[in-house]
Amino acid sequence: MKRFFIPKDILRECVIDVPKETCHRIFRVLRMSPGDKVVFFDGSGREKLVQLKEVGRNSVVVDVIKEALVWNEPVTRIILCQSVTKGKKLDWVFQKGTEIGVSEFIPMTSKRSIPSVKPNGDKSQGVRWEKIVTEATEQSGRSSVPIIHTIANFEEVCKTAATRGIGIIAWEKADNYDFKAVELRLGLKSDIYLLIGPEGGFDHQEVEFARNLGLIPFSLGKRILRAETAGLIAASVIFYQRNDFDI
Amino acid sequence: MKRFFIPKDILRECVIDVPKETCHRIFRVLRMSPGDKVVFFDGSGREKLVQLKEVGRNSVVVDVIKEALVWNEPVTRIILCQSVTKGKKLDWVFQKGTEIGVSEFIPMTSKRSIPSVKPNGDKSQGVRWEKIVTEATEQSGRSSVPIIHTIANFEEVCKTAATRGIGIIAWEKADNYDFKAVELRLGLKSDIYLLIGPEGGFDHQEVEFARNLGLIPFSLGKRILRAETAGLIAASVIFYQRNDFDI
Repeated sequence: MKRFFIPKDILRECVIDVPKETCHRIFRVLRMSPGDKVVFFDGSGREKLVQLKEVGRNSVVVDVIKEALVWNEPVTRIILCQSVTKGKKLDWVFQKGTEIGVSEFIPMTSKRSIPSVKPNGDKSQGVRWEKIVTEATEQSGRSSVPIIHTIANFEEVCKTAATRGIGIIAWEKADNYDFKAVELRLGLKSDIYLLIGPEGGFDHQEVEFARNLGLIPFSLGKRILRAETAGLIAASVIFYQRNDFDI
Repeated sequence: MKRFFIPKDILRECVIDVPKETCHRIFRVLRMSPGDKVVFFDGSGREKLVQLKEVGRNSVVVDVIKEALVWNEPVTRIILCQSVTKGKKLDWVFQKGTEIGVSEFIPMTSKRSIPSVKPNGDKSQGVRWEKIVTEATEQSGRSSVPIIHTIANFEEVCKTAATRGIGIIAWEKADNYDFKAVELRLGLKSDIYLLIGPEGGFDHQEVEFARNLGLIPFSLGKRILRAETAGLIAASVIFYQRNDFDI
């Protein structure tokens, strides 16, 4: 069943004023017809199963068949702080991270990151990222669309992690920090900041800075994962370990 | 340190006859110079740390500094059997699967798979795939380049899994087959065939066919992972659970 995110101030109404962009997708992209059923959800847990009644370029009229409260989100909130990297790799991290269950993304600049993204934002990029996470949320059956924060620098991210939750930082030289041991140290904390470096990794000073603030270095073992792979694998393993794939 | 795969009949010699393609990468792509150090490895565990002496378009002369036997491969052999899917998603599965530690790939046709790949092989595609897994092996520090088999059909793959190891099959309706329980049933088996369906999943008959041969259906929980994501996440979790990220 196709799912569409509709902002909650709209979904609350009896008459759903389907946003133009959603009309376009229903009418043009998916070529759906009257009679087809779809799900609208509002990001706060409300879902409406609706049947399409009229389908047009600019408006879609629906009959609500059923309403439900559904919360298909992990209990553990992973905040994936990913150093900006070249090309479209961040797009990919946002898409896959959303599928897996990441709650928030913080694109981050660090010493060796590649500033293909302008710190104060290229607006079209923000719009593209929003679209990627929204579509991945719809497709994966999640209830809530992850937040993508504006780009922050490494030191800010470490401070946020230290004050708001617990932070772990990927470091390929973290020989004594195997991931199972690191996970034990996370205890029952539910807000986990997962810091992933750029292609060249974090440097020693950065890791020391983070460690001094209480962040824990970790390694995923001897095989070297690419920058864009490491965060997703670490997030998956944390969810798995906490039985959070099933919630 | 940059690593390059050199077939073992060449690496055995005292005078290493660096393949033309590798010369091109060293000279043109990476623009390396005499004095730079790189690692050559042959896929069977032999590694040579060498220093570049002469670098040219068609030939590279090196001094061998050190030889070693290194085996950076997981004990668990995962054979990822992935239904063929549209676009370049398979390329991506091969790259990421290699990084994570998959030993073999079997591209597979199944009822709902999208035959963007011709069963009897488009040669250029095979060459591209080989290149992808070779480069991912070099980059990830693995010792052995995964095998990509020719495309096989679903029934053949199930039979191979049943006779040569143990097979598990992703099925979104496998409510009672949560992944932790399935993993326990894998016991100490080291050859795990991991069957992943196309975008529409496997159908009920396919799952029954597999189950009758002893394959175990599994689900990764309520969130729906895309076809190209599911196998990588399942493989990561299996390696993690068996401490195979560290070997």
